[in-house]
Order: sequence, then structure tokens, then C-alpha cells
Amino acid sequence: MLEKVDLKQKMSKEDFRKKGEALKAQLTTLDGPIKTAGLPVIILFEGWEGAGKGSIISRLIKNFDPRWFTMVNTLPPTPEEMREPMMWRHWKTIPEAGSMAIYDRSWYQEVSTLRIQQKVDDLTNIRHMNEINNFERGLADNGYVIIKFFLHISKKEQRARMDALKKDKDTKWRVSEADEKTNKEYDTYYNAYEQMLEYTNTVYAPWHVISGMDERACAYEVFDVVADTIQKALKVKKDREEAAKHEASLINPGQYHFLPMPKLAEIKLDKTMSEETYRKQLKKEQKRLAQLHNRIYKEKIPVIIAYEGWDAAGKGGNIKRVSEALDPRGYEVLPIASPSKEEKNRHFLWRFWTRLPKDGHFAIFDRTWYGRVMVERIEGFCTTADWQRAYGEINDFERQLYDWGAIILKFWIHIDSEEQLRRFTDRQNTPAKQWKITDEDWRNREKWPQYEEAVDDMLKYTTTDFAPWHVILGNDKKYARIQTLKIINDTIEERLNSARKRKR
Amino acid sequence: MLEKVDLKQKMSKEDFRKKGEALKAQLTTLDGPIKTAGLPVIILFEGWEGAGKGSIISRLIKNFDPRWFTMVNTLPPTPEEMREPMMWRHWKTIPEAGSMAIYDRSWYQEVSTLRIQQKVDDLTNIRHMNEINNFERGLADNGYVIIKFFLHISKKEQRARMDALKKDKDTKWRVSEADEKTNKEYDTYYNAYEQMLEYTNTVYAPWHVISGMDERACAYEVFDVVADTIQKALKVKKDREEAAKHEASLINPGQYHFLPMPKLAEIKLDKTMSEETYRKQLKKEQKRLAQLHNRIYKEKIPVIIAYEGWDAAGKGGNIKRVSEALDPRGYEVLPIASPSKEEKNRHFLWRFWTRLPKDGHFAIFDRTWYGRVMVERIEGFCTTADWQRAYGEINDFERQLYDWGAIILKFWIHIDSEEQLRRFTDRQNTPAKQWKITDEDWRNREKWPQYEEAVDDMLKYTTTDFAPWHVILGNDKKYARIQTLKIINDTIEERLNSARKRKR
Repeated sequence: MLEKVDLKQKMSKEDFRKKGEALKAQLTTLDGPIKTAGLPVIILFEGWEGAGKGSIISRLIKNFDPRWFTMVNTLPPTPEEMREPMMWRHWKTIPEAGSMAIYDRSWYQEVSTLRIQQKVDDLTNIRHMNEINNFERGLADNGYVIIKFFLHISKKEQRARMDALKKDKDTKWRVSEADEKTNKEYDTYYNAYEQMLEYTNTVYAPWHVISGMDERACAYEVFDVVADTIQKALKVKKDREEAAKHEASLINPGQYHFLPMPKLAEIKLDKTMSEETYRKQLKKEQKRLAQLHNRIYKEKIPVIIAYEGWDAAGKGGNIKRVSEALDPRGYEVLPIASPSKEEKNRHFLWRFWTRLPKDGHFAIFDRTWYGRVMVERIEGFCTTADWQRAYGEINDFERQLYDWGAIILKFWIHIDSEEQLRRFTDRQNTPAKQWKITDEDWRNREKWPQYEEAVDDMLKYTTTDFAPWHVILGNDKKYARIQTLKIINDTIEERLNSARKRKR
Repeated sequence: MLEKVDLKQKMSKEDFRKKGEALKAQLTTLDGPIKTAGLPVIILFEGWEGAGKGSIISRLIKNFDPRWFTMVNTLPPTPEEMREPMMWRHWKTIPEAGSMAIYDRSWYQEVSTLRIQQKVDDLTNIRHMNEINNFERGLADNGYVIIKFFLHISKKEQRARMDALKKDKDTKWRVSEADEKTNKEYDTYYNAYEQMLEYTNTVYAPWHVISGMDERACAYEVFDVVADTIQKALKVKKDREEAAKHEASLINPGQYHFLPMPKLAEIKLDKTMSEETYRKQLKKEQKRLAQLHNRIYKEKIPVIIAYEGWDAAGKGGNIKRVSEALDPRGYEVLPIASPSKEEKNRHFLWRFWTRLPKDGHFAIFDRTWYGRVMVERIEGFCTTADWQRAYGEINDFERQLYDWGAIILKFWIHIDSEEQLRRFTDRQNTPAKQWKITDEDWRNREKWPQYEEAVDDMLKYTTTDFAPWHVILGNDKKYARIQTLKIINDTIEERLNSARKRKR
């Protein structure tokens, strides 16, 4: 894509003033419509060192109210960030609906300059680019506009600009050794950029490769693309919302291998356990888990445990039996309530991405990202297309966690409707437990059939070989706790004895 | 305080089971009342390496539902954290109302082990301890319960425990070189601990220094203190809320030197500026600011600019003229809306502490922490005692920023009531501006006299010599912009030419 760029284009000051005037006026008045429409906008700048990203960004943002957009200045990852999946630090930065984030460098750092500096092998690099494409498609599907610029300059021009900076004592600190290297090894970088641009030039997030040789011509083109893309996106958003009302959509859980699962109605809940067996087994399995935690910590494997289940299924007590076996310095229990306003205004996975554990740590989610295909589906908090698309989005998400090296354990704590009624009634009648039961619990109970259908779909479309669901037989809490602990221990042990290594 | 601890206390297994039973039952049922009362609880553990913090914490949290508390494992600060004020990373961790945070090490790391390891001088250390006392008093005043444990063991016992760990290949990695040093230099650490305990043993957050020699005796005492303190706090909270309804309170802005300020009514708003002068001055001052930003960046000075002002006073346009002179990689504009639920559930300064700039960066706040003494005061979003106490809390906050090395600039953009009416009407009548004016703006306008009183109080009680207010004459926007830019530039220049150095 780079060779197609006309590096000779120029624009006179006068021309820029004349032609730019109307464009600037368009840009200045975009904030109202974007806010009103609730459109989230991502504008990112990549390109050669010295191509003028800083100046172009300065020129661009002069058209915007500074209170309305955020600047994201992407640096190489810190040691803490290196302990998380590659996209973790970028997920944290995405803007909310009705606002704009402008990126000076972005996730493309990992598949261009950092790729070369850290000598990332080709296969890993392709996985990284796939993760980026996944990320951008997910954002686009969820209504984000993504505008990507790559500023291109020639080797000679880059050399000249660096020399100019180095001449001035106030600016010479700006030229780092790494920068010098991009000039010396221009061809290597050129190839890496070209590969990156080709591979990530998608329909939902196309690249705009622009010459950075002449600042005015460059700025003009950037203004033009931004104004044009956003105006189109505002229109598309309206059309889409209209279409969503009629559209028949299809479930597409992605190209994964799915394990067969029974329907909830077919599952027998007759297992029980005596108090004595429970005490003994609990002690044994907790001790086993404590020892495994030590090894998990040493080998820096992240463990993600997802709990879902009927209200009053006993998630709390179950989680407690797991967590109390763990070193308190190495785990976190994350109760997931209904999303806050700032969470609702972003991609639905944002609040989970930002809560991932460090490697070597456990994260235990009490309710999870599966809310999208359960409560949000049933209560109509998202569109049909949204929850139907979510199976695939969730599988992609879990695949990234798996590739990062995580052990993913998903538990559906199952009880039957009669057992739930017994427990609700018990809570209602016990003063110390009353605060645990609300009207909403009773309302949800009335929707048992809808939830059953949703859970059946969930088990069907998201039981992958790398992140399978386990149905826990919850009518007897004791049995359920031991079953859960055993699955956790067996899975961790198996993984520790396998050859699979942590990737990033 | 350490010499008073009886290191010989012991408790038999049987005794612990018998006496502990009732205590455990108390602890287990604390979650309901704490949640219902909305009490935020902080429990922190400090003490000698090897004193058994981990084991005691494990025992303690077995009594709690893991979904309801968070564990904070405090490590030494990262390089990123070292670029912020000392308390920044700790502010981020405070729990919200109705929940509990348990700290394995805490802010006391900075004034004990880190103090010794990093050879912090005595004066700085006292400043650090003052910051901690301020922090804890602020939390306590805002309804937090703070329970602090220090686990004490003898030099001999510490040696024996380290040796035991080192014998086992699975645990020997737990004894670091730094740990060894605390044993070798036991006396040095003893003195540092003693000083820390004495200085920070306050009425609102007293220390519980407990022997760690016998695990059961230690656990029993910890359980006892936690159950007792929380039960008392629940009672105190009720009493306080009752008292707050009647109590006459007093404004106490703290022991600072306040500069004299005029009342708003005394300020003349007759200054104007011609378009031509404006253009010239704007260019000149923006250029000056751009150059100063370079030096700010190199000297790693943080700059905090706080904008307050009447609705439609022109804050947005004013901020724009400042921000467009800055390198977009080095500043952030932070619009402050009404607090979210999770923000409301914490100390009112939490959302500002967590948004501080990195050193060398600008943070421009569009509306600020002064909301506490304006909108929250006027709308009754906090109690009278709350906003009256806030002047002192805010001065303490700004003093910490100043001590960290920050330049603090506070602008009140002033217009008169007639000018506001003109601008409101203009917005109402211009289609492209209509989204900027809401019913709330009109409602606020009716409260002009109450706001004027609140602003006069604010200027009187928070114009300190280290963070003074500047009243900007806003009836002519052009004049106001230039006035602001000049104050910013002059202040920065003065600071760059002064001898004051960044502290931490």
C-alpha cells in the first residue's frame, strides 16, 4: 500500500486557507451531532518517526472542543502491562458513546516497531494482527467508527528531519537511538509496515495511507477523511438503528470446535453428599488447590473462573470454598452487577477486559460477560442482533485469554425450580438473610422458561474446547462445592503437566 | 509502643475454638449491617517480615463472603507510580460505602521499610507521615472506619521463621534479600517502626500493636478488635447521622496563610480588548506557553489548572486557547460532571486524586473539587458539616500537590448576571448551539445569589499562597482569554526561575 502514495503532493498556504476553511467549519460543528447520536469515534495515527504525527494531530484537534475528546499517547508497554494479554492496555482506552479518542500511536505499535525491536516471530505476529482485526471488528459491530491514518515519508526526508531536530539543543532529545534505527533500517521497517497495512486493512476499519512530506497537503487530507467518515457514520448509524427494528439476524458463534452439551431439562439433580464425606473431601481438595496455587504463581499462569447460575443456586458459598483455599495475595473475587453508565456507554466487553487478573493470579467472576446472552437478551437491554452476535464475540474474547496462557473455567450452577422456591422462602423467613432477597429475584423467577432457553443456547454456542462450560449439580450444596473444586484442581493439574506454554 | 507488647501470650487450640466461636459468628454476620448502613471499612496489616500477616489475613477473611471485600496487596511503587504524589496510588484503592478493603501492607510501607531502603531524610519522612495522618483523618471525617494492625515479633523468632522457610525448596523463594536485611538490621527497623507507630497513632485511626509470636492468640485478638470496632462504628454512624441534623458546625479552613480577596460584587467587569490586540496577544502568549511547556516537560513539573465559573462564562473557549498551545501528548482536559454512583460512594476527593496528571504533564479541570462547596452545598447533596469541613480538606489536598512539586492555577471566570442572560438567550436562539443549553442552566441561574455567596466563601477560604484563585474578567471573552494565558505563563516562568525543586 505504501508504494501507491504520491510523495510529491504539495499544497500552498493560500490554497490550504481557501479549501481548508469549509472543512474546518465542518469539523468544528461535529461535536453536537456526535454527542446527540451517541457515536463513539476512534481516530488513530501511525507512521514513520518524524512523519509529522504530532503536528498533524495538533492541527486536527484545534478544530475540536478540548473537553470533548481524549488524547491517547501510546508508549511501549510497561512491565505490568506485559503481564496482561496484548490488547488489555488498549481496551482500557476506548472512548464512550458520544465522544472521541485520538491516538498518537496505538495497538499497531505491537505489530510494527515493537515487533522488530522485540524480534517477535512471524506466527506470533500474525496472531497479534488477528487479535487486532478481531478487536476492531468487535468495536465496529458495536457501533464504533474507526479512522486509521498512516503517515508515510521517504528515507531521505526522515534523515533530513532528524538532522534538523538534532541541530537545536532544545529539540535534540527528541531523536532517540530507536528513532535513528528506523532510518538506518528503513527497508526492514518498510516491509513490516507494508505487511501490517495489508493485513489489517479491513472493510470495517480501512487504512488511510497519506504522504507526510508536505504538512499542509497532509493536514488537508486528514481533515477531509475525518469530516467525511464521521458524516457518513452518523448517517449509517441512523439507518442501522432503523434496520435493527426489522432485521432478522443469525447466530454465528465463530469458527470454533464446540463440545456437545445436554439441555438443562435433561440433567438429573439427584446427587447428594453426606456431611462426613463433605468435610473430608473439602479438606483434601482445598489443600490440593492451595498447593496448585503455588505452582500457578511460580509459572505465571492466569486463572479465570466464571460463575453463572440460577438465583440462590449457591454461587456465593461455592466461591467461598474455592477462595479460602487460595493465598489472599493471589486472587480477586469480582462481583458483576448491572453496568454503570460509563460501562453501558462502551463495548459490552470493556468492563471485563479491564478487570482481567495479572498472570499468576486468579480472577473469580461472580456473574460474567454471559449477562449479554442472558439478562440483556431477556430484558431487551440490547438488540437481537447484539446478543446473537455476542456468542462469537465471547468466543473470540475467551480465545485471546487462552492464547495469552489463561486457564478458563466456566461453571453453571444448576438447581431446579422447586429447590429455588425452597431457598427463596427460607431467605424470606430468616431475618438475618432477608437483605439477600429482593423483589427482582421474584420477578426473575417468573422468567424461568426464558432463562432456560437462553442458558441452553449459551451452553450450545460457547462450550469450546479451550473454554468449556461445566454444569454443577447444585441441589445439594455440599456436592456442588466438591464437584467444583475437583474440576478446578483437575484442570489446573492437567495444564501444569501439559506442554502448553504461556504466550503473549 | 512496641515494648508494651506481651510477646509471651499464647492460646491453646481448644481455647481458640471455644472462645473464637462466638467471635467468628459475629464477624460472619457483619456484611448485612455494613451493607445496609453503607459503612466503608479499611483494615490494614503492617508488621515485621515473617510476623504472619498472610496467615492472619487468611484466617480473618474466612469469616467473610469473598464477593464483598477486596484484598489490596501493596507492593513498592512502580516507576509510573513514583511520578505521582505519594498518596496517589493509595487513594485509588479506597473501598466504597458498604464494602471493605483489607490491606496486606499499605501506605505505611513508604514511612517504614521503603524509608530505610531509599534513605528518605527525616524531614521528608515527617512530611510523609503528616500526609498519611491527613489522609486518614479525611477518610474518618467522611465516615470511613480504619482498623490498623501492626504484628510484632522478636528478632530471634524472625530469624527462626526465615530459616524454616529457607529449608523447604518450595518456600525458600519467599525469603528475599530485603527480608534478610530486616533481621540483620532489626534495631534500625525497630526504631523506624516505633517512630511511625507513635506519630500516626491517632484518635481517628489508632494502631493495634499485637504479638505475632503465637498465631492463635494473634488471630483471636485481631478478630476481637475487628468485630468490636465495626460494631461500635455502626452505632457511631447512626448517632452521627442523627446529630448532623441538629449540629451547628464551623468552617475551619486549616492552618494556612490566606491572601485577601475581593467579594464578587466589588469586581468591575469593564475590561475589553480589540480584535486586533487580541490576535496579536493570543499569538504571542500561545507561543510563549508552547515554549514553557517544553521546559515543564523536561523538568518534570506537573501543572494543574482548575477552571470554575458561571454557566456560559466562556470556560470552554478559554480552555481551548490554552490547550491548543500545548503539545497534545502532554496534557489532558478533564470535564467534571456530576459524580457517578461509584464516585458518590467514596470520599469526595477520590475522583480527583485518581485523575492527577503525570509529572511534566498538564491537567486542565473543567469544573473541579470545588463542586463540594458550590453545587453540593447549595443543592444539599452533602451535609452542612461536610461542606464546611471541605475548605480545610481541599487546602490539605492542594498542599500535597504543591509539595509534590505541582504548579496549581485556579481560575474563577467571572461574568455578571446580565451578560449570562444575553448568552443564554443567544444559545437558545441559535440552532447549532441549542444542545448546549438545558433547563438545568436556567434553574441554576435562579440561584445566582446563593452561588454568589458560596463563591465569596470559596475565594475567602481557599486562596492560599501556594494555590491562589485568580478572578478572570469574563464579560469580554477575548480579554479573559489573554488574561488567563498571561497568568499561566507568568506563573510557570516564575516557578521555572525559582529554586523550588520537585519533592516526593
